[in-house]
Amino acid sequence: MNSNIKVGIVGYGNLGKGVQKAIGQNPDLELVAIFTRRDPQQMPEVSGVRFEHISAAEQYIGKIDVMILCGGSATDLPEQTPQIARLFNTVDSFDTHAKIPEFFEQVNEAAQAGGHVSVISTGWDPGLFSMNRLLAQSILPEGHDYTFWGKGVSQGHSDAIRRVPGVKAGVQYTIPVQEVIDDIRSGSTPELTTREKHIRACYVVAEEGADQEQIRQTIVSMPNYFADYDTTVTFITQEELDAEHSGMPHGGFVIRSGVTGNGSRQIIEFGLKLDSNPEFTASVLVAYARAAFRLSGEGQQGAKTVFDIPLGYLSPKSAEELRRELL
Amino acid sequence: MNSNIKVGIVGYGNLGKGVQKAIGQNPDLELVAIFTRRDPQQMPEVSGVRFEHISAAEQYIGKIDVMILCGGSATDLPEQTPQIARLFNTVDSFDTHAKIPEFFEQVNEAAQAGGHVSVISTGWDPGLFSMNRLLAQSILPEGHDYTFWGKGVSQGHSDAIRRVPGVKAGVQYTIPVQEVIDDIRSGSTPELTTREKHIRACYVVAEEGADQEQIRQTIVSMPNYFADYDTTVTFITQEELDAEHSGMPHGGFVIRSGVTGNGSRQIIEFGLKLDSNPEFTASVLVAYARAAFRLSGEGQQGAKTVFDIPLGYLSPKSAEELRRELL
Repeated sequence: MNSNIKVGIVGYGNLGKGVQKAIGQNPDLELVAIFTRRDPQQMPEVSGVRFEHISAAEQYIGKIDVMILCGGSATDLPEQTPQIARLFNTVDSFDTHAKIPEFFEQVNEAAQAGGHVSVISTGWDPGLFSMNRLLAQSILPEGHDYTFWGKGVSQGHSDAIRRVPGVKAGVQYTIPVQEVIDDIRSGSTPELTTREKHIRACYVVAEEGADQEQIRQTIVSMPNYFADYDTTVTFITQEELDAEHSGMPHGGFVIRSGVTGNGSRQIIEFGLKLDSNPEFTASVLVAYARAAFRLSGEGQQGAKTVFDIPLGYLSPKSAEELRRELL
Repeated sequence: MNSNIKVGIVGYGNLGKGVQKAIGQNPDLELVAIFTRRDPQQMPEVSGVRFEHISAAEQYIGKIDVMILCGGSATDLPEQTPQIARLFNTVDSFDTHAKIPEFFEQVNEAAQAGGHVSVISTGWDPGLFSMNRLLAQSILPEGHDYTFWGKGVSQGHSDAIRRVPGVKAGVQYTIPVQEVIDDIRSGSTPELTTREKHIRACYVVAEEGADQEQIRQTIVSMPNYFADYDTTVTFITQEELDAEHSGMPHGGFVIRSGVTGNGSRQIIEFGLKLDSNPEFTASVLVAYARAAFRLSGEGQQGAKTVFDIPLGYLSPKSAEELRRELL
């Protein structure tokens, strides 16, 4: 259909695959092509999907309304977003919190130069969690904020486990401490460090004949990664790892506990429980691609964040429908 | 300070008192006057507060940036919002869901005529809950929505209890069924009616010598109000009622359970646990008064809802600060 929003994907890792699937769940969006740095001829045959080399992107000007950038924040996005924002409206999930101000300025300049809209740093953190931190602080100016992550796989900590001698394979979950959450939900406002809010659970496949107690000691005493945390190590077989630990679950909570009037306690909580972290992040990116298209259609330009975009722009429904059905 | 946002309050019930307190928590807002239909001479002495008769509102044109309307949705707001929107920017908490489209049109016309911004139907439901319904549906187009209310006092049901012969006083709490919430949180998507999601707990002070069993039977079999619900009746003393049931707690949850990709289950949850329903609603209104002021300053006009307003407008912080601190 001509009225569909035409979308391109840049990058075909877990996130890019998630975006491809999410577009299939949104009838007003249409996938035009997936751009990759690999040889497009070597990409898998996927029904209805056209692969192109990233260098061919420019040929799609006028044929793609929004590019969803699915590269990583370390090296891909700092380079790709400013380049592509000169040519297309974009959406990305740049998530290096400390570098967001600088990234925003660079992307804003590029998007303004090209006359496009670039939604940066969306997903769930940064993204939905950021929105809830802002919302809750604005409503309850006197209060405490808590962000918990998990239960979810930490890639960096899983890599650290796998570097321990005698370890064949392993995965690490960050898990919020339930007692701390319950305490906050019931009105307490403790001062907490990240380590007091989370435990680290490791599932490890040892090599045959390896000393499990030695592996356990090496992991739990590893500085920076585990030494300061409550860390559990569970030995499992390769079969168990493959069967039970190959998913990419994640989630977490943003809780604000504040007071109003003469000490009335008010608690606002937002939580996610995700079977698939990349598929969920992808679904957020796709909703914001719709918003980018609409903002651009109104003549807006430059970099935008989740703080700048009215929620109504995320929905395929009209403002009248939203007021009637969802308000 | 001259740079403060100057606010007026219309109506001085629980909500108006809550707004007065909430303004005190926001240093960038300043309360100019409270307007009432009562005789301003008869209003209580409140330090630093000026009371005016509602008919004097027009004299405050140019002295008040935003009027926060704290009347009821049944008769006050349908009359007051369109009237005042011709003279000032306004914020209200109109909450008769079925009449919102009609109310929007009337207020929009008045606000456009006056060149003002009117934020209608904010608070927490409609308001924050509506925003979360919209956000979650936009991100997870395949899924089920659940809204639970409580634990909170239902005024209509409390009134019904008090009309039962032999009842001296009483209060009714609507309480979400914990088992149902747990079931949904763990991934189930049952079809549920409001009555299957909530129980009704009644705390009753009986008149001396009244037949408590008779009262209990009359309450639990009352059509529309209680007969179809799981209803508990607990008899307490007047002292217990005064000591433990004079607050106005409320809250609830909006949960969306959806799927992405090849069946990954994704759950988004937003919840509130409020010691004081009117004070919390008031705090939301005050944050939206800030937004109304800013939108008006940009030259916008007409009726707006929570779906139309970027979250950044709710915060006293600049866009740069928000990106640096909260994204």
